[in-house]
Amino acid sequence: MTRQQLVDQIKQKKSFLCVGLDPDIDKIPEFLKQYPDPIFEFNKRIIDATKDLCVAYKPNSAFYEAYGVKGLQSLIATGKYIPKDCLSIIDAKRGDIGNTSDKYACAFFDESTSGMNFDAITVTPYMGNDSVTPYLKYDGKWVIILALTSSIGSKDFQYLPTEDGHLYETVIKKANTWAGADRLMYVVGATKSTEFTEIRKYAPDNFLLVPGVGAQGGSLQDVCQYGITKDCGLLVNSSRGIIYAGSGEDFADAARAEALKLQKEMQVELEKSGII
Amino acid sequence: MTRQQLVDQIKQKKSFLCVGLDPDIDKIPEFLKQYPDPIFEFNKRIIDATKDLCVAYKPNSAFYEAYGVKGLQSLIATGKYIPKDCLSIIDAKRGDIGNTSDKYACAFFDESTSGMNFDAITVTPYMGNDSVTPYLKYDGKWVIILALTSSIGSKDFQYLPTEDGHLYETVIKKANTWAGADRLMYVVGATKSTEFTEIRKYAPDNFLLVPGVGAQGGSLQDVCQYGITKDCGLLVNSSRGIIYAGSGEDFADAARAEALKLQKEMQVELEKSGII
Repeated sequence: MTRQQLVDQIKQKKSFLCVGLDPDIDKIPEFLKQYPDPIFEFNKRIIDATKDLCVAYKPNSAFYEAYGVKGLQSLIATGKYIPKDCLSIIDAKRGDIGNTSDKYACAFFDESTSGMNFDAITVTPYMGNDSVTPYLKYDGKWVIILALTSSIGSKDFQYLPTEDGHLYETVIKKANTWAGADRLMYVVGATKSTEFTEIRKYAPDNFLLVPGVGAQGGSLQDVCQYGITKDCGLLVNSSRGIIYAGSGEDFADAARAEALKLQKEMQVELEKSGII
Repeated sequence: MTRQQLVDQIKQKKSFLCVGLDPDIDKIPEFLKQYPDPIFEFNKRIIDATKDLCVAYKPNSAFYEAYGVKGLQSLIATGKYIPKDCLSIIDAKRGDIGNTSDKYACAFFDESTSGMNFDAITVTPYMGNDSVTPYLKYDGKWVIILALTSSIGSKDFQYLPTEDGHLYETVIKKANTWAGADRLMYVVGATKSTEFTEIRKYAPDNFLLVPGVGAQGGSLQDVCQYGITKDCGLLVNSSRGIIYAGSGEDFADAARAEALKLQKEMQVELEKSGII
């Protein structure tokens, strides 16, 4: 999916919502366990209930890898089921040397070898350029680099002072020399909305993938005030807040209601900024 | 495997060699392709030919993930086949927030959910403590944190100046507050052998997993001169230099010959340091 197609989707759906598909077999509704692949069945119903309200889906690989071969089969089936008009992001946070990153790129982008063909992958920056550039060999695919995360541990290294401000700012400044805003996005935790101003200095045009709105304490209004651009430039993710909104047979309706609430708030922000 | 058991193995085998199992279907001998699982068949023969010469095996997850479900089946079979007297390291370089790292820990440490039960995992430090500590809930398992890597991209961030010297030194200093040298190791690239002196200031007792000896230019003598401790404290990895030493039907013999050469050099170093 190109940048223009993503922007068009945002305008059309009046939404910049990304739904995180992080299913846990102990948390999904009991009745789904009668199906041969309960995890996929769960995701399928979430996707059916939310696909007109969001522009991206983001399965986190860990939640599938935990279940071995069965989990990988659920992930592959989920990837194939994500509608083509939504950006499919594999949240894998990989990062390795060049020849190894080539293999990870096969794993997530080359359907002929792995069965998977996501549009974008999250990558951790610690190992530098050769942990990012191999993914860019695939035309039209995106790399989403961790910059500032919403985790407790983000304080340990991401805020270390550097000549650019902090480590996360140096990461963005450096990574922007590897590719443009049509191929690179950054993960920026929404619990630190005032820092969006600083981040926009280094990444004025890049899309930012923002976790942590809602349950984790970030405010959508703050994120938009400091982070929105003329092309929107934001994908705001919600995982648990949507997928576990309900726990009964009507869990997909409950998920839709939560997604709709966020979409409505997003519509207000898009209108306020003159994007729609 | 406990630290003492690892040290005992090193003394008994007169070796601190780790064999990297990074098989590529395009590089393994042609005749193996007649087997139902050529990748596992390749690994099995490498293991059979080298298990008395090394103390650890390290499959890199990317080389299996590239082949989807079949690749994961090869990885699971390989993990089970690694002898119990060798440390089994999954080189996965994972790193995510706490509840997600719990899932990665299941994936690689909890055989009941994933089919895999490795002794150790490599982890990337960018997201801080909650990307490391979940693995430590598993008694007797090791976390091996990336500090200084042998990749081209290591220059991008790992050498950034910090009050401890460089980012990689801050990573070690900080991570050592999370667990002791009986649970944490560090990855330190052997292309920078003079930096071992600096690293030993912050990690005097930790085992260091050292890639990059041989093909990538590091010298075993230099690594030992600056990095060896009274318990050895080193695991030196070789992947391509061993597994692709030959390409015919005798590839396992060729691999053994390369491993033996390294083991002999290691024996000299262990004797020189009075460890054996």
